[in-house]
Amino acid sequence: MHNIKRHRLEQFSDGVIAIAITLLAFELKAPVLSANDLQNSFFQLLDLLPTLLTFILSFVTIAILWVNHHQMTEHIDNLSRKIIWANMVFLMFLALIPFATRAIAENPYNFVSVTTYGFIMLCTSLSFSITHLWIHKKINHNVSLSSKLIKRSLIGPILYTCATVAAFNYVPIAYFLLMIPPLYYFLPKKSQG
Amino acid sequence: MHNIKRHRLEQFSDGVIAIAITLLAFELKAPVLSANDLQNSFFQLLDLLPTLLTFILSFVTIAILWVNHHQMTEHIDNLSRKIIWANMVFLMFLALIPFATRAIAENPYNFVSVTTYGFIMLCTSLSFSITHLWIHKKINHNVSLSSKLIKRSLIGPILYTCATVAAFNYVPIAYFLLMIPPLYYFLPKKSQG
Amino acid sequence: MHNIKRHRLEQFSDGVIAIAITLLAFELKAPVLSANDLQNSFFQLLDLLPTLLTFILSFVTIAILWVNHHQMTEHIDNLSRKIIWANMVFLMFLALIPFATRAIAENPYNFVSVTTYGFIMLCTSLSFSITHLWIHKKINHNVSLSSKLIKRSLIGPILYTCATVAAFNYVPIAYFLLMIPPLYYFLPKKSQG
Amino acid sequence: MHNIKRHRLEQFSDGVIAIAITLLAFELKAPVLSANDLQNSFFQLLDLLPTLLTFILSFVTIAILWVNHHQMTEHIDNLSRKIIWANMVFLMFLALIPFATRAIAENPYNFVSVTTYGFIMLCTSLSFSITHLWIHKKINHNVSLSSKLIKRSLIGPILYTCATVAAFNYVPIAYFLLMIPPLYYFLPKKSQG
Repeated sequence: MHNIKRHRLEQFSDGVIAIAITLLAFELKAPVLSANDLQNSFFQLLDLLPTLLTFILSFVTIAILWVNHHQMTEHIDNLSRKIIWANMVFLMFLALIPFATRAIAENPYNFVSVTTYGFIMLCTSLSFSITHLWIHKKINHNVSLSSKLIKRSLIGPILYTCATVAAFNYVPIAYFLLMIPPLYYFLPKKSQG
Repeated sequence: MHNIKRHRLEQFSDGVIAIAITLLAFELKAPVLSANDLQNSFFQLLDLLPTLLTFILSFVTIAILWVNHHQMTEHIDNLSRKIIWANMVFLMFLALIPFATRAIAENPYNFVSVTTYGFIMLCTSLSFSITHLWIHKKINHNVSLSSKLIKRSLIGPILYTCATVAAFNYVPIAYFLLMIPPLYYFLPKKSQG
Repeated sequence: MHNIKRHRLEQFSDGVIAIAITLLAFELKAPVLSANDLQNSFFQLLDLLPTLLTFILSFVTIAILWVNHHQMTEHIDNLSRKIIWANMVFLMFLALIPFATRAIAENPYNFVSVTTYGFIMLCTSLSFSITHLWIHKKINHNVSLSSKLIKRSLIGPILYTCATVAAFNYVPIAYFLLMIPPLYYFLPKKSQG
Repeated sequence: MHNIKRHRLEQFSDGVIAIAITLLAFELKAPVLSANDLQNSFFQLLDLLPTLLTFILSFVTIAILWVNHHQMTEHIDNLSRKIIWANMVFLMFLALIPFATRAIAENPYNFVSVTTYGFIMLCTSLSFSITHLWIHKKINHNVSLSSKLIKRSLIGPILYTCATVAAFNYVPIAYFLLMIPPLYYFLPKKSQG
């Protein structure tokens, strides 16, 4: 089994991520603008608000994943079969995000669509963390992973698990939990190198 | 925080821009060609005219942004977190252009769709200018920006603000204003390097 | 006739494969989630199951083709016209997989959609094998191909032929046969390096 | 005005061409397979035949354009503004081919859709030839072009002009003319290297 060069896996991943992130906007349905006076049109645009917010949430989440994906593959040259397929599973779940975003845009207050969204985010986040840890392990010659690194990798998946469970009970809490990972990312950190 | 290599950000941006520009044409709806005689078909194709003109306007605007984007990233090697996210916001608004184009194609004379189009163009143009100025500042080691450069960066956003406001009052003026930035780009310039 | 550089054919193939694999998920239709209680929603999601399984099957099959495609072009630098067009035919059939996946998702138990899916998979697999054998022959300076290599290249096409034929008689057998190539790929092998 | 590096224009063009060629298949509509017996299903699939043939015609035409595009940019390193925008116009018309293909797939015997298809092919072919001649001129330091080269560049545009005009009178002749450029490409040539 030959190893795949980093360069081409990056290129393929970049392609899939770029397409998924651009399709997010493609999913947006133009509202039926029947009204031609200011007030009614304003209310019709207001109906678009949950769709737009979900679009922004998904876009930022995918963008963060792309930035992290770049940093992840930076220090490795030859990828093993295990890592390639962990990355493929990650791309598979990521490719489902536009679908989940559309499900939310169509039924923003329905718990099934929010649960689906949360669950796909959980799978994406978990498969990303696994790929990340395996790459980290390979770079460091199979030294066992520090518990600090494992903990940090689990923050995303745990938050998305909570969001998925919360959506069953009360949808707004799920939305709140879904917004934490991106917000956490943009918080100023003390030391990150 | 590691810096992202120019090469991969370019590749990702190129991917998003290429997809957005190709989806523009995908949005075009084939007209229902019921007529099979020359005259009626001609009138049916005439109905496509505003759609086609909007398609060309959006295509040329995105193409100009791509050319400028290339020149922008040419002289910088490592991108800071701030610049990466300014570029991401730019890509987010750019990804909305096919959606805005479709909104216009469906309701070319409705002021809400034209306002939406103008507003998305404004956001795209503004986020592009901010990315551009930040990159320029970083290349020149944080020397404060010349007022001439700032002025030139504001031409686009100001024109799109005018178009957005104009659309509320009289749609044709908005269209006229939306066409100025591409026309300005193709005018022969005296000195540009 | 100039030869095409490996680099650009890889890039083009990667683009087409990345788009096709991402469009797979785009084809998924969000179910009409009318129900707002747990039980009915559960059954509505259950209806999505065949769609999801087909999505996973197509995704994994395309991912395997991508990995193999990478290994195939690794040792060749200049590609002849014959190889370029064999690769193009492969990409043409691969681009039809999202269409075939949607056909199955809409009519999972109809033999015509399963036959269509099997037939497109057969054409993709066969054109891939032909490209692979021609590249192998060119690398080894037109030495005749070993019968072992030819046999291994025919496993996929033969299985897909069986699946296509089986779909005419009994659809579940076709599904079973369609799953063998990906499963075979992930089986641990004795010697391949 | 800085010149754009060949590498990035190639990458962008490859992206647009790869997306357009993959969207061709995406346009195909799965037939409504109501029948579950062999005979009726067979006739329903037969209805797909014109769609499939148009798909293959468009795919092969775009693939040829891609191969030629590669050879065109091989010997030039810095591209002038004029060449970049000729290439952009080429990409704009190429991006319309999936739209034209869908128009034909929906109304294969209607002269308006065939005329539209022929006209878009004409524009694509003409803008490609202009880009090609300008690049050729720049490589050879503005030596005037040989009449032989100009003649060869005009074969495509002339054939597509004939097809567009023919579609007004008798659709089958237009289809025949549209098939000549790809067939001509695959004919064995005496000297081209």
